[in-house]
Amino acid sequence: MDERLRKQMEFALEIDKEKNIFRQTHLSNHGRNENDAEHAWHMAIMAYLLREYSNEPIDIGKVMLMCLIHDIVEIDAGDTYAYDLEGQKTQKAREEAAKERIFSMLPEDQKSELSSLFDEFEAYETPEAKFAHAMDNLQPLMLNDSNDGADWREHRVHSSQVYGRQSKTRRGSQKLYELVDQLIQKNIKKGNIMPD
Amino acid sequence: MDERLRKQMEFALEIDKEKNIFRQTHLSNHGRNENDAEHAWHMAIMAYLLREYSNEPIDIGKVMLMCLIHDIVEIDAGDTYAYDLEGQKTQKAREEAAKERIFSMLPEDQKSELSSLFDEFEAYETPEAKFAHAMDNLQPLMLNDSNDGADWREHRVHSSQVYGRQSKTRRGSQKLYELVDQLIQKNIKKGNIMPD
Repeated sequence: MDERLRKQMEFALEIDKEKNIFRQTHLSNHGRNENDAEHAWHMAIMAYLLREYSNEPIDIGKVMLMCLIHDIVEIDAGDTYAYDLEGQKTQKAREEAAKERIFSMLPEDQKSELSSLFDEFEAYETPEAKFAHAMDNLQPLMLNDSNDGADWREHRVHSSQVYGRQSKTRRGSQKLYELVDQLIQKNIKKGNIMPD
Repeated sequence: MDERLRKQMEFALEIDKEKNIFRQTHLSNHGRNENDAEHAWHMAIMAYLLREYSNEPIDIGKVMLMCLIHDIVEIDAGDTYAYDLEGQKTQKAREEAAKERIFSMLPEDQKSELSSLFDEFEAYETPEAKFAHAMDNLQPLMLNDSNDGADWREHRVHSSQVYGRQSKTRRGSQKLYELVDQLIQKNIKKGNIMPD
């Protein structure tokens, strides 16, 4: 096997570990915790199906790839829960180190491409990054709503926390933010999300 | 919520069930069984990284979407193991019924688009379908090889069975077929795959 293909296959095998990184979100029908790989798969399909609601024109192939790779760094850095303020203090440094180690397994051109795409997602500035983040927010909200807000109740999450995170969904899609707002209001009324 | 978005979100929630469809393949490091959603995620990233090895020019965005959706029908039809000859007799009918039920949750235009893409994958004729199938074959082979062929040993799989399936990888990528052939030969020598 030549060197280039060997590196590509070693990376492909390495990212298998993402299937063992579990999130706080639970699958629908009160299922088990979701893992990062499944979450990324779900986001990528939702991005494709909902692309018509992006505020700005987007390169949907780029959004899908961004969704698929955005959590690879968590193989080393672990999942940081959306409302874990302590974990968030070190999240950036942990994820930068992970990015360097894991993407360095690839040939140089692909390391550079995927690292840039990850940085673009994190920077939250391009239309593609904003829409990918909208999916990263909408997908777990959809699951949690389907489970009658069990994850919010377990963590005693307040409405300001949910709005703090979800208000950024508006930057990717005004239309999907309206849906998100409806779902949040419904869950506040049901007592699943605590008032401030 | 308008009717179109409501249908799209109902479909998005429905496909969450794919995370509960488990395959015979085990994750690397002798992990648990892999599920369909993780498998699809892995295939889509591998398709992107290995696209240079396609025999023919491909629309990589289309290949990735094909990879992501190709197992949705298994929510109803279940996973049919590659070497389960009995199951394969009814596989087509089970998957057709599943395709009709699940994709019908979408708005008509998206139902039509995703059904066509699934049919294209199944027909194994276009360059995109051939490359997506190469990933569908290479990804579990890579995992199984990393586990010293435990899945082949468990099911007492013979070399003609593995070659019967994997020889079609050549239709998508001659280069990746050469890699596949090396891995199969290695596992025959080690006694992980039984001689005929």
